[in-house]
Amino acid sequence: MTLVHLSAPVADALAKGGPVVALESTIITHGMPWPQNLEMARKVEQTIRDGGATPATIAVLEGKLCVGLDDAQLEALAQTKHAAKLSRADMAVCMARGGTGATTVAATMIAARLAGIEVFATGGIGGVHRGAEQSFDISADLQELAQTSVTVIAAGAKAILDLSKTMEVLETLGVPVIAYGQDQLPAFWSREAGIAAPLRLDTAKQIAEAHRMRGALGLPGGQLVANPIPEAAEIPRETMMPIIARAMEDATAHGIHGKAVTPYLLQRIFELTEGRSLESNIELVLNNARLGAAIAAEMSALPAT
Amino acid sequence: MTLVHLSAPVADALAKGGPVVALESTIITHGMPWPQNLEMARKVEQTIRDGGATPATIAVLEGKLCVGLDDAQLEALAQTKHAAKLSRADMAVCMARGGTGATTVAATMIAARLAGIEVFATGGIGGVHRGAEQSFDISADLQELAQTSVTVIAAGAKAILDLSKTMEVLETLGVPVIAYGQDQLPAFWSREAGIAAPLRLDTAKQIAEAHRMRGALGLPGGQLVANPIPEAAEIPRETMMPIIARAMEDATAHGIHGKAVTPYLLQRIFELTEGRSLESNIELVLNNARLGAAIAAEMSALPAT
Amino acid sequence: MTLVHLSAPVADALAKGGPVVALESTIITHGMPWPQNLEMARKVEQTIRDGGATPATIAVLEGKLCVGLDDAQLEALAQTKHAAKLSRADMAVCMARGGTGATTVAATMIAARLAGIEVFATGGIGGVHRGAEQSFDISADLQELAQTSVTVIAAGAKAILDLSKTMEVLETLGVPVIAYGQDQLPAFWSREAGIAAPLRLDTAKQIAEAHRMRGALGLPGGQLVANPIPEAAEIPRETMMPIIARAMEDATAHGIHGKAVTPYLLQRIFELTEGRSLESNIELVLNNARLGAAIAAEMSALPAT
Ligand SMILES: [Mn+2]
Ligand SMILES: [Mn+2]
Ligand SMILES: [Mn+2]
Repeated sequence: MTLVHLSAPVADALAKGGPVVALESTIITHGMPWPQNLEMARKVEQTIRDGGATPATIAVLEGKLCVGLDDAQLEALAQTKHAAKLSRADMAVCMARGGTGATTVAATMIAARLAGIEVFATGGIGGVHRGAEQSFDISADLQELAQTSVTVIAAGAKAILDLSKTMEVLETLGVPVIAYGQDQLPAFWSREAGIAAPLRLDTAKQIAEAHRMRGALGLPGGQLVANPIPEAAEIPRETMMPIIARAMEDATAHGIHGKAVTPYLLQRIFELTEGRSLESNIELVLNNARLGAAIAAEMSALPAT
Repeated sequence: MTLVHLSAPVADALAKGGPVVALESTIITHGMPWPQNLEMARKVEQTIRDGGATPATIAVLEGKLCVGLDDAQLEALAQTKHAAKLSRADMAVCMARGGTGATTVAATMIAARLAGIEVFATGGIGGVHRGAEQSFDISADLQELAQTSVTVIAAGAKAILDLSKTMEVLETLGVPVIAYGQDQLPAFWSREAGIAAPLRLDTAKQIAEAHRMRGALGLPGGQLVANPIPEAAEIPRETMMPIIARAMEDATAHGIHGKAVTPYLLQRIFELTEGRSLESNIELVLNNARLGAAIAAEMSALPAT
Repeated sequence: MTLVHLSAPVADALAKGGPVVALESTIITHGMPWPQNLEMARKVEQTIRDGGATPATIAVLEGKLCVGLDDAQLEALAQTKHAAKLSRADMAVCMARGGTGATTVAATMIAARLAGIEVFATGGIGGVHRGAEQSFDISADLQELAQTSVTVIAAGAKAILDLSKTMEVLETLGVPVIAYGQDQLPAFWSREAGIAAPLRLDTAKQIAEAHRMRGALGLPGGQLVANPIPEAAEIPRETMMPIIARAMEDATAHGIHGKAVTPYLLQRIFELTEGRSLESNIELVLNNARLGAAIAAEMSALPAT
């Protein structure tokens, strides 16, 4: 059984040892409305091509784990209404049943690893939810970073999460969190989280070398590269903090809870920022795609471990 | 050194690629009083045979990891007063010292995997204890499901646990939780937990195929199949909730704490239900054995991964 | 690339299958002031030699993972002001950048495993910090014990931690915690923690055999041997408890938080015990080195798994 279906460009790039950057698909199916989601998906892929690498958007389509989608598949996925949101727990069941689903950070890492892709660019990773000391609600993305050897470029954990607890869990799990080009952690829409980063690297080459060293040591996990949003696109922390607080109050006031909280907060922040949060989100994803392409290029220039 | 001692029928079935269902032994030594424990153990094994599969009850006897017990061994174990209750942490020490111990869900999974058995039927798994946000008391069974490739059929986590936190931890750890034939999670004695199941499958074949797909993806963990107790044997949730609450109040009032809480609660629930909880427990184990045999049969009909 | 640089005596001992005991270096760079740190490091190494084994102090020196330091390297490390404190998360980045760092328990276990060393003696391991139910501050050492096959000899978790939560996490993660020669857990400076040990073994040979049995079962983690401080050197629990409580009050009163808490507490306890805590610390490390040498000797006498 061929489990992983590579698109022709991805298969070609991997066969040559050329740079490939994996992309998740939940941002397409659950993160943005049609048709902005398709526009953004295309722009991200083009940004990676402009950076000299091959994009590999990942999704499960009718039971097939597709690594690299053609434009028709991308468009169809962007219009799908009922795609599942797949993580480590439900990926195999979806595939065995012939279902269709978009991959979260965790599932994208698993698929990238299976395909032999070492770099993955996304917007923000999941983390420890606020209130997790009572709810125990912690994203599977953190465990995935601890066990699957893929370097993930994100603009930090989403700022509606508990960043401090998220950092503690990553430390406990032995995951390198590397701020790119600055001492502080970024906080998704903002360049600074008010929290010092455990590690800092300043070039794509250094990040590629650290990834390979980790592999050489036999350490099974990946790296999280926390890449600050470009200054022109950021919403500063002082602006975002009260907006996030307000969105949370509204969620409580409206009795939103469980899985409904995150989408509610993102929508409310969109409204409260008059759409700026979405523009920032698109810019930070493009920025991560650029860095991803650069890291992938450096990695393919290094000897394989 | 031959580490795993297979009984003749288990060795025979495995050699032929026939269906085998693993069974734990803690339910025999710690879960029920003599002689009901032996009766139940024999009935469960017979149920599996009636379903066309070979039962493999697992225990450590005088340092030997036995997979499959003959009737004399089963009877001796059912009468043992001082068997240890073995989990991942203490299994190797017990074996190295030549000790005797019954296997919990975690240790049974480890032994099943070593023997090449893919399916294991039990009553309920361990989980996150109520109050774990302060006590940090979380069963090793959850971590085992995340790393050991065995499909475990249970009637849910024991309802005296914190089911909501248990589900969160399983999601964080990437464990598929599959309700069998219904949309809600079951809650051990009751068919419904008031919590939607993350996944639902309706046939033994689908469960077997999902297990194999998980293996093909290289994901190391197992699956938890949450199989609702038969209607005729259930104690409905409305009846059980106040009984569990009462048993907990009594535990607090009597200053019961730590490892003593679970056995106290189970005994108190037995009294408060006038023995119905034990009858239900036996019926749900038999029901899980039936489904286990069916899944094992489907799995042995699939090509090996 | 030769990743691990063995000193000549360590390479020699490993080639012969002779007993080797790994030692961490954070205790040298961050645990004690100059020149006591060098004195102690030399004494610990000599104790291991006196026990018939070869000491292998581990550190990253200018990007090289050194297993076994010569006396000049040991002295240089003891005088280094800016060594990083390396754990699983930051070890590879430090090495890739050519940096210098001391290894914590987690990083020492990783390096020992890579070098083929099965025994590691230290003072105390990291654990669950008090207040972790809110801060989520849990040492990476616990996860390391769950996945890296090294027997670690310590005098328990440091008594300023939450020992009860630390024990729960170790149980959840399936780590054997073996009290040596007594039924209670030790608590670093004190022989008794007021908590029953999950496991007890009485000889180095039993510990070696249990380690090998764990390996034979394919269980990936290590063992924690909790070795009580010698009676002559202990500060009894009744004496230490109010001192630890006082040090914590002072930390709160002075607004100490985050990573600054542990060094503050250790310094404050040093003052409040008028230096006895440091003397005890040195004695317990030497005591662990002795037991480590004995366990390593027993292990090298057993057939390899
Ligand atoms: Mn969640
Ligand atoms: Mn427990
Ligand atoms: Mn910490």
